[in-house]
Order: sequence, then structure tokens, then C-alpha cells
Amino acid sequence: MLKLYYATGTCALATYMTLEEAGADYTAERLSFKDNQQNSPDYLAINPKGRVPALVTDRGVLTETPAMLAYIAQTFPKAKLAPLDDPFDFAQVQSFNSYLCSTAHINHAHKMRGARWATQESSFADMKAMVPKTMAACFSLIEQKMFRGPWVMGDQFTICDPYLHTLSHWLEGDSVDINATPKIADHFKRMSDRPAVRKVMDAQKA
Amino acid sequence: MLKLYYATGTCALATYMTLEEAGADYTAERLSFKDNQQNSPDYLAINPKGRVPALVTDRGVLTETPAMLAYIAQTFPKAKLAPLDDPFDFAQVQSFNSYLCSTAHINHAHKMRGARWATQESSFADMKAMVPKTMAACFSLIEQKMFRGPWVMGDQFTICDPYLHTLSHWLEGDSVDINATPKIADHFKRMSDRPAVRKVMDAQKA
Repeated sequence: MLKLYYATGTCALATYMTLEEAGADYTAERLSFKDNQQNSPDYLAINPKGRVPALVTDRGVLTETPAMLAYIAQTFPKAKLAPLDDPFDFAQVQSFNSYLCSTAHINHAHKMRGARWATQESSFADMKAMVPKTMAACFSLIEQKMFRGPWVMGDQFTICDPYLHTLSHWLEGDSVDINATPKIADHFKRMSDRPAVRKVMDAQKA
Repeated sequence: MLKLYYATGTCALATYMTLEEAGADYTAERLSFKDNQQNSPDYLAINPKGRVPALVTDRGVLTETPAMLAYIAQTFPKAKLAPLDDPFDFAQVQSFNSYLCSTAHINHAHKMRGARWATQESSFADMKAMVPKTMAACFSLIEQKMFRGPWVMGDQFTICDPYLHTLSHWLEGDSVDINATPKIADHFKRMSDRPAVRKVMDAQKA
């Protein structure tokens, strides 16, 4: 059985939602960032990066959201969460997820995680002030150049959708108006109504 | 035929090396960052992100290194550049590449690309000063927890190897002693001797 380690409000919710969409048999364990549980010796033995998510499988532990999402799509093919038989279409799914991971998420991280890349309070304030602009730019690019509709990749719901939805949740806190990107705003509403998403959002708040 | 857009010294060299290792039929076009060619209207029509790499295929354009590397592995299966038939092993390859993309590369980018996340010269200097520490930490984690040897994933050369090698090239400029990570230092030497790697390193300097 799979076991997911996650924390409230983090990118780990993308994997949590995807496990649910896949109909996977799994458990989810919440870590408290407030209590710094991600850096406890027990958790570092599972994921030496001290981050979430981590997915424990019967073969070993996986980390990094894009890798985990592709893994779930490949191991639950009946859920049809990625175009597994077409390398180009699959690459487009992966490209979208990589952009979320290495550009959008990174921009967002400069609001609260400036200490990863700098040491001065003035730098942290400078970084934090720029987040509304960089996140708005990311979501504008997604809206205009990547998002096909009604789902990210078009008619087929894929692993891109829970991942985008997870980051869309960050916009309000990042002072970005989701309505400036109407296709993503509509996606947010439709995703929020999915039973799998509701289950995860309820579970993480419980 | 495939066409790769790249720039000297960038992460695009990972895809360039991988195309060469795969025995692909491709051309490579170099953009000059000095002349800001990545933001020219012609190139933005190919890649609206204004970044390299971009890989033009007969189906369309692909961006994002991890997606492109997996695509090359899948479309040139005879080159055996990834464990394509085992979702868990494939996920480990993808996890490694995602870490390079979203953590190691991002740390490095804070040396010269601070304007992506801040506005003040004092912030740029602060970020730049931390790069030796963050890059050393990344490579230490790779050496201790990820690198199996003799190649990243063990006995089998994979798409992880050109990607790691590309970022290993950045260490000297980032004031990180590669010899502090002896397995990666050895990997650097063996990679440098590969004909595919030599061809790319020569071509980007020509």
C-alpha cells in the first residue's frame, strides 16, 4: 500500500488529489511544518531533503511532485490520468508540470522561504514584494499559452489538473486575482467540485 | 528532424548531449543571451517563455529539460537512456532530474538571475553570496543520498548523467570544489571523455 507524507497547503496536495483521482489504495500522513516535523530524524530517514511530499511504495520512497504524478498515472493506467502511449503528448504533460515545479512554485516560495536563497531581512522583504508580480506573470502565461480547456491538456483530465489546482489555491495569499485569468478561474471552480478534491481539502483541514 | 535551441553554458546542454547520446538526427541552433536573442519576437513565437532549451519536433515544440530528456529516452528506446518499462525506476530517474531542475538549477540561478525574484542591488548581492553554500549543499546531498555509481542510477547510463554533468560544469564558477564530492568529481571526468559530450562541448564553443 502507498503512503503519502504531506503538509497542509503545500504542493503535496497535488499528489494527494491524484492518488484519490486514481482510486489508489493509500494512506496519508500529515506533517506539521509549525513543529518542523519535516526535519525530524524519523522523517529525514524517509526523505533526506526534509520536504514534502514523499510517497512510500513497496519498492522504496519517491519524491518530487512531477515524478510522483507521472508514476501514479503509469501505475494506475485505467484512471487515464496521462497520455501514456504517446511520447509527445506525455512530454507536454511533463513540460507543464515541470513549469509549475521549477518556475511557478519557485516564484511563490520567495514569499515565505527567502532564507533558502538569502540571509538579510531586507532581501526577504524585497523578494516577498515581487511575488504578486511573478505569480501573476506565470498564471497569465499559463492562461494564454498553455491551458487548452476545459482541462489543462484539453478534453482529457490529466495529472496537470490537480497540480494546477493546488497552485491556484496559492493565488489569493499571493495577492493575485484569479479572475484576471478567467479560464483558470473557471478551472478552479470545476476542480473544487470534484469529489476527489473535496475529500482531500476536507482531510487536510480535519 | 529535431531542432534544438540552446545557449552556451546553459542547462540546454543536457538535452544537446542527450540527443547526441541517443544518436538522434537533429540540428542545434545557438542563441546569444548577450544579444538577448531569447526574447526576440522570432524566438518568442517558438518558446513564449523566452528561455532555452526548446526542442522543435514534427508534432510541435517542447520545453523544460526533464520533459525533453524523458521524451528523447522514450522516442529513442534503443539507446536505453531510461528504464522505460519499470514505472518505479523511471520515477527515480524523473525524481533526480526534477531535483536538478527545481532545486540545484534554481540555487545556481540566484547568482546571475536575481532580478527574477527581487529588485534591489543589495538583494542580488545577498543572493549571490549564498550560492556557494546552496550549491555545495545540493551536490553533497546528491553525492550522499542519490548518486549510485558509476552512473547516477547505477550500472546503466541514463538521461540523469548528461543533466548532472551539465550542472557540474557550473560548480567552479559557483566557487564550489567538485572534489568535495569525489563520486561526482569522478563522474565529471568520465563524462568529459565521452565522444557525445566532447562533441557538444566543442560545438558550443565554436
